[in-house]
Amino acid sequence: MSINSYGHLFRVTTWGESHGPALGATVDGCPPGVPLTAPMIQHWLDKRRPGQNKMTTQRNEPDAVEILSGVYDDVTTGTPIQLMIENTDQRSKDYGDILNTFRPGHADITYHQKYGVRDPRGGGRSSARETASRVAAGGVAREAIKALAPNVQITGYMVQMGEKHIDRARFDWDAIEGNDFWCPDAGVVEEWTDYINWLRKDDHNSVGAMIEVVARNVPAGIGAPVYGKLDTDLSAAMMSINAVKGVEIGEGMAAAALTGRANADEIFMGPNGPEYSSNHAGGILGGISTGQDIVVRFAVKPTSSILSPRASIRMDGSPTEVVTKGRHDPCVGIRAVPVGEAMMASVILDHILLDRGQTGGVRGKIG
Amino acid sequence: MSINSYGHLFRVTTWGESHGPALGATVDGCPPGVPLTAPMIQHWLDKRRPGQNKMTTQRNEPDAVEILSGVYDDVTTGTPIQLMIENTDQRSKDYGDILNTFRPGHADITYHQKYGVRDPRGGGRSSARETASRVAAGGVAREAIKALAPNVQITGYMVQMGEKHIDRARFDWDAIEGNDFWCPDAGVVEEWTDYINWLRKDDHNSVGAMIEVVARNVPAGIGAPVYGKLDTDLSAAMMSINAVKGVEIGEGMAAAALTGRANADEIFMGPNGPEYSSNHAGGILGGISTGQDIVVRFAVKPTSSILSPRASIRMDGSPTEVVTKGRHDPCVGIRAVPVGEAMMASVILDHILLDRGQTGGVRGKIG
Amino acid sequence: MSINSYGHLFRVTTWGESHGPALGATVDGCPPGVPLTAPMIQHWLDKRRPGQNKMTTQRNEPDAVEILSGVYDDVTTGTPIQLMIENTDQRSKDYGDILNTFRPGHADITYHQKYGVRDPRGGGRSSARETASRVAAGGVAREAIKALAPNVQITGYMVQMGEKHIDRARFDWDAIEGNDFWCPDAGVVEEWTDYINWLRKDDHNSVGAMIEVVARNVPAGIGAPVYGKLDTDLSAAMMSINAVKGVEIGEGMAAAALTGRANADEIFMGPNGPEYSSNHAGGILGGISTGQDIVVRFAVKPTSSILSPRASIRMDGSPTEVVTKGRHDPCVGIRAVPVGEAMMASVILDHILLDRGQTGGVRGKIG
Amino acid sequence: MSINSYGHLFRVTTWGESHGPALGATVDGCPPGVPLTAPMIQHWLDKRRPGQNKMTTQRNEPDAVEILSGVYDDVTTGTPIQLMIENTDQRSKDYGDILNTFRPGHADITYHQKYGVRDPRGGGRSSARETASRVAAGGVAREAIKALAPNVQITGYMVQMGEKHIDRARFDWDAIEGNDFWCPDAGVVEEWTDYINWLRKDDHNSVGAMIEVVARNVPAGIGAPVYGKLDTDLSAAMMSINAVKGVEIGEGMAAAALTGRANADEIFMGPNGPEYSSNHAGGILGGISTGQDIVVRFAVKPTSSILSPRASIRMDGSPTEVVTKGRHDPCVGIRAVPVGEAMMASVILDHILLDRGQTGGVRGKIG
Repeated sequence: MSINSYGHLFRVTTWGESHGPALGATVDGCPPGVPLTAPMIQHWLDKRRPGQNKMTTQRNEPDAVEILSGVYDDVTTGTPIQLMIENTDQRSKDYGDILNTFRPGHADITYHQKYGVRDPRGGGRSSARETASRVAAGGVAREAIKALAPNVQITGYMVQMGEKHIDRARFDWDAIEGNDFWCPDAGVVEEWTDYINWLRKDDHNSVGAMIEVVARNVPAGIGAPVYGKLDTDLSAAMMSINAVKGVEIGEGMAAAALTGRANADEIFMGPNGPEYSSNHAGGILGGISTGQDIVVRFAVKPTSSILSPRASIRMDGSPTEVVTKGRHDPCVGIRAVPVGEAMMASVILDHILLDRGQTGGVRGKIG
Repeated sequence: MSINSYGHLFRVTTWGESHGPALGATVDGCPPGVPLTAPMIQHWLDKRRPGQNKMTTQRNEPDAVEILSGVYDDVTTGTPIQLMIENTDQRSKDYGDILNTFRPGHADITYHQKYGVRDPRGGGRSSARETASRVAAGGVAREAIKALAPNVQITGYMVQMGEKHIDRARFDWDAIEGNDFWCPDAGVVEEWTDYINWLRKDDHNSVGAMIEVVARNVPAGIGAPVYGKLDTDLSAAMMSINAVKGVEIGEGMAAAALTGRANADEIFMGPNGPEYSSNHAGGILGGISTGQDIVVRFAVKPTSSILSPRASIRMDGSPTEVVTKGRHDPCVGIRAVPVGEAMMASVILDHILLDRGQTGGVRGKIG
Repeated sequence: MSINSYGHLFRVTTWGESHGPALGATVDGCPPGVPLTAPMIQHWLDKRRPGQNKMTTQRNEPDAVEILSGVYDDVTTGTPIQLMIENTDQRSKDYGDILNTFRPGHADITYHQKYGVRDPRGGGRSSARETASRVAAGGVAREAIKALAPNVQITGYMVQMGEKHIDRARFDWDAIEGNDFWCPDAGVVEEWTDYINWLRKDDHNSVGAMIEVVARNVPAGIGAPVYGKLDTDLSAAMMSINAVKGVEIGEGMAAAALTGRANADEIFMGPNGPEYSSNHAGGILGGISTGQDIVVRFAVKPTSSILSPRASIRMDGSPTEVVTKGRHDPCVGIRAVPVGEAMMASVILDHILLDRGQTGGVRGKIG
Repeated sequence: MSINSYGHLFRVTTWGESHGPALGATVDGCPPGVPLTAPMIQHWLDKRRPGQNKMTTQRNEPDAVEILSGVYDDVTTGTPIQLMIENTDQRSKDYGDILNTFRPGHADITYHQKYGVRDPRGGGRSSARETASRVAAGGVAREAIKALAPNVQITGYMVQMGEKHIDRARFDWDAIEGNDFWCPDAGVVEEWTDYINWLRKDDHNSVGAMIEVVARNVPAGIGAPVYGKLDTDLSAAMMSINAVKGVEIGEGMAAAALTGRANADEIFMGPNGPEYSSNHAGGILGGISTGQDIVVRFAVKPTSSILSPRASIRMDGSPTEVVTKGRHDPCVGIRAVPVGEAMMASVILDHILLDRGQTGGVRGKIG
């Protein structure tokens, strides 16, 4: 039991602090024989990287990943893969004044209470920088999925920023890569851009976001009832991301308002197997994939690191006001998109392996 | 790694099918020296028990729990506690016609696809009856919490049924035990009763629900970043319950719409330690408890077992219509209340033990 | 992490005390589709059962196993299998006088020290009776192996009792089932019988034993370096059996005395793949099976429950003498034979499943 | 479940290949507040380091450890500690000819069979070089033990090399650090030195060894029955070390030859608690520490990498002879001494933490 690990057979342990020498992921359980190089992983880290656009923090680091083990001649060997990202831009003096102060809405106070000691530089281990490790590990998962279930496609995108929602009628998969928000509705981009610029420069504020991640072409039959259900593991995976406060599968919280007649996805026999009239279930029944799209949504709270003063206390209990001057994203949800994709990829791969171990991939015949 | 288990140090494995000889929970890791008897656990099972009121299924079983191990002279010994509930009312003929049919919205089809074989009687392992095991295990957790952190109070209740919401202004802790919905707003009970009766008798339909579970007086400092965060584990715990499709901590999905200024819970020094101006965080920062109320909500979808016909297929792929005539709750969310409480209790105890192991309960001084 | 569990994918949790209502095993991870009935498991329990012959304790219980879950129509469903054995002969008054006394060489004192409370009846959880649960679970493992790797044969036998050794030149597989010692050398049976009768009746003493367990026809390639090596897991499995104090693979402790030239098993190409000139390695290289016989030996210490008085103390610290009058085997090693087989079966199955999950059963080509 | 990990609460994952860029250990679960610096760990690596004396391989690397995370201001923070050792002396051309050849007694053939692909340079992951990671992690464990149970002393030493044994009558703790064999009997050092020199230079051979590791002053009450017994975990820990083929606790395999009267350690009340007349049990009863010395022995087989030719096959199945010309120890058992100590330290710390979590350190009163 390692508390800094996730996964059953594809097991990832992330390590590292925001301003320590390096951070990374120890990836155990990747199948052997998967083609893997550092640039394949770098691709996904670049997607997450801060300083990519004006929407995200100005911290400018290459976030260059190195593979230290587990790969020989550009192929995985089945042994642990160590991924390391050196921290090159560690301007820790920015954070000098928060050593003795607890930022409201941050983990400063609880880490102090729990451990009695903490690395205060940039939030230490509680920094969103930890998610770079996940994105790197997710890159490994993607390559392994490519080898085992090549049709699977995993895509994340923003569907809401603050009170602004996308128009589902304008949903366009191809729009996602074309804007700084990973937004599938090109029609909102200009308004969102203006809003976020105003937030940062004028309002000295930040805002929350809603991310949706979809896995298409996942074979039916993966997922492990009762406590390793696909939705259980996806929920844990997303909720473990910094600042996430809610997770939904398919209808999600809205399922509470539905009736049984409305919610049941009716089943028909298609040419290649069962088909469904709808996907309220989000591609999962009883914790097991149906073959439909797997649909997960999660809410990212607004960062508490803002230029507006908030009341707080110091370690000695004295009152103070906190204004965070460091480099911070007005909407951390943007960078959560590739993180959510990485977690989805890790969970999907994990369950492909687990199902292979548990059932040998037997499938009950239909038709 | 057991897929039918949850918890780190307080580890519960549930077992059993809806219509097999028995079901139960193997509870490993309960601390020694905790007073425990079968009636203490029975109390919580009775709360969940079907046939308790008109709102829930007419299946009438005593659900009597037996303690087969781990307790001597009414005190836990630190060895595994086996809890068994015999199935006495197994009218499996009710289910004869669904042997070859997949009920829409049920796990029938995915269990068949994954395992190639399944126990079709009453949904087998995928039946909500599995949650009786959790409630029994949660009863053990409650007694252990009582011994280790006696002020902790764990309470669940319904806040929404279908499109009907409670009025938070009328919230009353004392109302919860006084109605069949575990509803904290006595003002809605009559309307909800009429609605659910109409649903079942006239509309042949079912409806979803939203449950909230609160843990009060949990000490600050429990929770294990990064992948054993308190919110991560609570999310997995709730999402593993049958029919749950979404989980929220504190603000939950609504956090996406907030700004940083609005969302930050400001900190003040109180007479007994830090206090907060609000609880958007739901009592958890960075995965660690703040000492505030821990607030979790989850959505339960409407059961698909309804008297209204839905299109489906048989095992041979031929089309059919499914009408479920068995004994089923029009709102399974009602019985999810004690289940949610049980999962909360298990997670809280688990993290009290884990924190004790990892940090020895050191706490950083404030003030 | 459950401390009363073993296995990675085939995960067994044993529960129950010597004189509680029942004991058993919760078996999670058995593949679906395996034919399984109670009599199949009973066969192995009968082999272990006390009261079978004069060599073992006179406690006379049927040890009848019931399958409470995980099996439908005599086939496993992939859900947890609960195996229960009721304790029917619980003469706990035999043990009344040891409530306050610590038997030398027993876990009485350490359980008391660790937990502060213990079930003293028959040794409670530390009784060798716990191994009945393992034998039951091992019966499940054997049936699953039969389905997945039908040529595998697992056989245990005694090679030493006290200072008496078998003559390896007379080794005969067929002799094993023909005597009360599971001894492959029929030539020693008479002498061993006389010795053990004298030990019990005249010498009021007990004696240790050495058990060897061999798995034949295990396919090459199972075993998971570095910390799930086949020899590592077998070592843990055997050392967890009551009274075991040493475990050897292949040459075992004797490897310390060998030179590299003598110890290396030379490799030749046979008609069906690699063959070896010898099997010093015990069928395992680098933790992975070679396809040769897997050979494990373990030493069982003599039971401390003897009629001869030994010095000890009471709970209050006062000195006393302990004479154990209960029903105890003069050589517990005899009943350890089926237990060792059960552990071997569980480990082999576990690694067949694990290898399937991790590598998909790919095998590097030779020749 | 990570197969490259060990430990329950103190969880170590080792990673890295013999001739890759680096190797190391990801240490999760070290308590916060423990003073820790790289030189503290380096001390133990230097003890293991090759090239230290003529007895061990001439590969000359500094084996300098870096701490990449988990430590702030020279104190552990409770977050994962990443330890990295760069490989600086990677003369992989030495191994060019073994790419297609399987060395007898090595894991070359089984890694190839299992994974279909392997890093052949220096044995890749199956090299004894992996144990450097364990020694580094063990250094962390030692510092944490120093903080939690300062009287504990962990010491390993050689008691046998080939057929040469120490004379227990001359056992001297102080002699251990004074010779190249970590031998407690100074009287055998000259003879052993001559023997090993002859083995390497003249006989082109290697030899096995027996190592004993003792932990003194371990408090009574740690160890977790039934499958996390102290002896179970120690057995797994030692058996996972390269080339180990047997493990003993206390009397070990010799227990098979003893009678119950001889083997029972009688109990007396001493001034500070229970005392024992002897220590046949090796300080462990029922898997729980008694407070006596914990005594473990393990046998290390002779390395198969020798200058004498042995028959083998190539990947294409053709016969060949293998002579290993690389830099190899004639007795790998020597370097196994600090490795055994490291594993003992890791297990002891792990169980101190686990006991704290499970029982809160309650202890039953005696006297």
